[in-house]
Amino acid sequence: MRRNDTLLELLLELQTLDRVPRMGYLLRGVTDPESITEHTWHVAFLVWALGPRVPGLDLLRALEIALVHDLAEVRTGDLPRVAKRYFAHGTQEAAEREVMDELSGPLAERTAELMAEYRAAETKEARLVKACDKLQLMIKVAAYERWGAGWLGEFWDNPENFPELGIDVVRDLFEELRTAHGPPPSR
Amino acid sequence: MRRNDTLLELLLELQTLDRVPRMGYLLRGVTDPESITEHTWHVAFLVWALGPRVPGLDLLRALEIALVHDLAEVRTGDLPRVAKRYFAHGTQEAAEREVMDELSGPLAERTAELMAEYRAAETKEARLVKACDKLQLMIKVAAYERWGAGWLGEFWDNPENFPELGIDVVRDLFEELRTAHGPPPSR
Amino acid sequence: MRRNDTLLELLLELQTLDRVPRMGYLLRGVTDPESITEHTWHVAFLVWALGPRVPGLDLLRALEIALVHDLAEVRTGDLPRVAKRYFAHGTQEAAEREVMDELSGPLAERTAELMAEYRAAETKEARLVKACDKLQLMIKVAAYERWGAGWLGEFWDNPENFPELGIDVVRDLFEELRTAHGPPPSR
Amino acid sequence: MRRNDTLLELLLELQTLDRVPRMGYLLRGVTDPESITEHTWHVAFLVWALGPRVPGLDLLRALEIALVHDLAEVRTGDLPRVAKRYFAHGTQEAAEREVMDELSGPLAERTAELMAEYRAAETKEARLVKACDKLQLMIKVAAYERWGAGWLGEFWDNPENFPELGIDVVRDLFEELRTAHGPPPSR
Amino acid sequence: MRRNDTLLELLLELQTLDRVPRMGYLLRGVTDPESITEHTWHVAFLVWALGPRVPGLDLLRALEIALVHDLAEVRTGDLPRVAKRYFAHGTQEAAEREVMDELSGPLAERTAELMAEYRAAETKEARLVKACDKLQLMIKVAAYERWGAGWLGEFWDNPENFPELGIDVVRDLFEELRTAHGPPPSR
Amino acid sequence: MRRNDTLLELLLELQTLDRVPRMGYLLRGVTDPESITEHTWHVAFLVWALGPRVPGLDLLRALEIALVHDLAEVRTGDLPRVAKRYFAHGTQEAAEREVMDELSGPLAERTAELMAEYRAAETKEARLVKACDKLQLMIKVAAYERWGAGWLGEFWDNPENFPELGIDVVRDLFEELRTAHGPPPSR
Repeated sequence: MRRNDTLLELLLELQTLDRVPRMGYLLRGVTDPESITEHTWHVAFLVWALGPRVPGLDLLRALEIALVHDLAEVRTGDLPRVAKRYFAHGTQEAAEREVMDELSGPLAERTAELMAEYRAAETKEARLVKACDKLQLMIKVAAYERWGAGWLGEFWDNPENFPELGIDVVRDLFEELRTAHGPPPSR
Repeated sequence: MRRNDTLLELLLELQTLDRVPRMGYLLRGVTDPESITEHTWHVAFLVWALGPRVPGLDLLRALEIALVHDLAEVRTGDLPRVAKRYFAHGTQEAAEREVMDELSGPLAERTAELMAEYRAAETKEARLVKACDKLQLMIKVAAYERWGAGWLGEFWDNPENFPELGIDVVRDLFEELRTAHGPPPSR
Repeated sequence: MRRNDTLLELLLELQTLDRVPRMGYLLRGVTDPESITEHTWHVAFLVWALGPRVPGLDLLRALEIALVHDLAEVRTGDLPRVAKRYFAHGTQEAAEREVMDELSGPLAERTAELMAEYRAAETKEARLVKACDKLQLMIKVAAYERWGAGWLGEFWDNPENFPELGIDVVRDLFEELRTAHGPPPSR
Repeated sequence: MRRNDTLLELLLELQTLDRVPRMGYLLRGVTDPESITEHTWHVAFLVWALGPRVPGLDLLRALEIALVHDLAEVRTGDLPRVAKRYFAHGTQEAAEREVMDELSGPLAERTAELMAEYRAAETKEARLVKACDKLQLMIKVAAYERWGAGWLGEFWDNPENFPELGIDVVRDLFEELRTAHGPPPSR
Repeated sequence: MRRNDTLLELLLELQTLDRVPRMGYLLRGVTDPESITEHTWHVAFLVWALGPRVPGLDLLRALEIALVHDLAEVRTGDLPRVAKRYFAHGTQEAAEREVMDELSGPLAERTAELMAEYRAAETKEARLVKACDKLQLMIKVAAYERWGAGWLGEFWDNPENFPELGIDVVRDLFEELRTAHGPPPSR
Repeated sequence: MRRNDTLLELLLELQTLDRVPRMGYLLRGVTDPESITEHTWHVAFLVWALGPRVPGLDLLRALEIALVHDLAEVRTGDLPRVAKRYFAHGTQEAAEREVMDELSGPLAERTAELMAEYRAAETKEARLVKACDKLQLMIKVAAYERWGAGWLGEFWDNPENFPELGIDVVRDLFEELRTAHGPPPSR
């Protein structure tokens, strides 16, 4: 794969993002799990739904971050979390930066800036996207369990899957989800 | 199906949008075609990519319209264009309005306003989303043909599939696509 | 899409009916749900199995109606019931008639007559097909639940999904199904 | 698997026929090929479409044969033709008879009679079904090729795949298919 | 299908083994069940894992048998067990031998010798592969049940699905599996 | 995910290897591409087929390496080659070693030894497996192209996809493949 010199080349390549499955679900036996594209839309929708209830948020900025936050996976695939923890600190991010640069072509400057903000996780906007990224993960787990999936209990056992709870609207929604769809507390 | 009284209920229901296939591709023999969720993300991405080159555009507004423009299909499914032309004028929109109202629950006011703007197609923002909706259709056609699909020529034959060309950046991109990936002019 | 001028064109187009999923199941998280073609065969089989136990039935006529009753969906896709209730009275039928006419080509006269009888639902034959159309819906629900689907309880809650019970053999079979595979009465 | 003592048990088991793929296409790299259920409906539809043009045909009888002719495959799966030619003469039929008997339960007598007529292939009705069984095979080959499949040329090379041409309407339709969609004669 | 005259032709044909589903699971409603290729690898892996604990075993020989034991199914498909019991004694083996001969081409002598040993089931190596073939069947059943499949209880009810227990390590592993994942004894 | 303390736990986890798609094909639009399990069996089969023609080869050792060479991907997923080149030298291998250790449980010693030999690529056995790993990649590319895939030309353009040609039988077979199925030399 090469650098995308034109926007059209980038757009055509991005169509394959629809075929990249979210590995965490796949490795737990979910048939036909969501794609990275689907995950990304759901995160953006969450940001849009919750944004107005986050005081002082720049909604446009947050949406922009959400829209591009997993773009690199059209080249790297989706690394399951378990894989990520094995990699030496920083190597994944450096790789992602390089992939993003070659991939984004004429949009490279804009995506680089948004991704840097996302990784730093210091602005309110980046933190909301990060929280929604996790929240979406657990909403989908609840949806799959409702549809019949049987082996997703591990997701509820691991707090690393939960949104960081610094943002009130996210915390409340996640607690509502866990109460209604999570495993019984005694498990 | 009922009115979604809470945001959580809406969010859980929206996960099924990933399973709704785009009927136009399906009815032309494409295996595992994109979902409505995927289509929607691609449209939003196009709006984000092209927006800064449209003078005077409110990018946030355009992105909001893009994000919700096909939401109702989580209840109605994707009506192929050929079906739409048979319905009496206005009936589909009335139905869509009612579906959106019941579906959106606590977000009903926001979605209704955005959908009204989208349907009216009078603002620059709505018109860009409409143009990107068509542009994405044809980019995907080109992608499927590149992957091996064989029966999509009809899409190139019917100008109703093409973006309205009032917006310069969309027109240019579509012409670039057609030149590089469309059928030979003599066809 | 055009009028099919020859039988061969019609037959080739009908092969795509296999790719049209039944939306009700899809929108409830069933993976790889039955196609319209499959639904149609099961309805025809039910008619064949039960027909001899319906006094005075013209089995050939009933089979003919069953075989063609969902043909139009190769162009319109499968409208979920929830969508149908939003459309203004009569618009769907008018559209379906027009679709059927263009689709059926050289067979248009025969299909129009059968579809008119089916919609009127006055003859014993049409009523049996309608009852089997619902009965098949619920038999499939029971099958999917047996296979592991988890979110189909709503089908059992809504009497609109049940066959009208004017025909004895259908009523008895449905009650047997509900007793053995439906939810407990207290639900 | 046991004898189906009730019609309901039989009907529930038959739902899995939708999951049995037609092996000939699968073994030639077709993704998501038709199921036995789908094949069967298409054969029945062909019989219905062509039947009125076959002088003296008992259409009801022909439709009944078509509807049940592959029922046993819900237990045996679809044996590819290449497998069949290796089996000792008669063994497949004996097995099929036994499977059908256990499977059909309360319908066993009716299915046995129809299958006997089908296998004997002496009546006009049985011969039409057999011819449509082959014709459907080749129509689907043409459809898959139109959709992009690349490795189906072998089907056109082997006259065993062609309908026996004793019936005029079948012969004419097959020749029309071969002329329009088959390989060039020089191949 | 013809005799594969070259190794390359054989190798290309074998790629379709990935598309042949294991029918037993399919006929019990498992979505996207394992392929013959996948089954075969798991059997070989079991042989490799357990082999060193079987005194006096020729591990290479056992692995060779495992690797080729289902090769013929690239031409015959996977016959469900229920089908096999209907066929006259010996006919399946004769067919399989002929298929293997035509299929294997330049490797025919090696595969014939291994298959003869496998069928005779007299050597320690052949018996281990046969036991692992069953053990893998039941491990997969347990995995599918863990993932949410609901209609596999029948596999646990039929001792024909269990590995013959002459080999200690297989017996112990199967009992461990049944205790942890099988149905309660009272069922 | 934890350390697998028992062989049974390892075996159950390995069943999900069937769901991990080979990313290179997926990212080039191949529908339903082979799984890691399938890839691994084909590599083992190649080793078995070619091994006897490699002088002085320890076939058992080579088969053992082939069987386990991609085991870690049941936890990490399949990293596309394009991703690998971005990671800092050695980080992927260190991660893979740790994953393999936790995954393999009671078999950890045996897999570690085989993986070390595979990575070092100094023995004849390891080099044959590496060559067959690439050869299988390109045989599958040829198979997908034969089935209708349209966007795999890039695989033929990049010599990194080709087997190292130090082993005569592999070189000859690859040249035969390229001549028969690769792109024309002028491309």
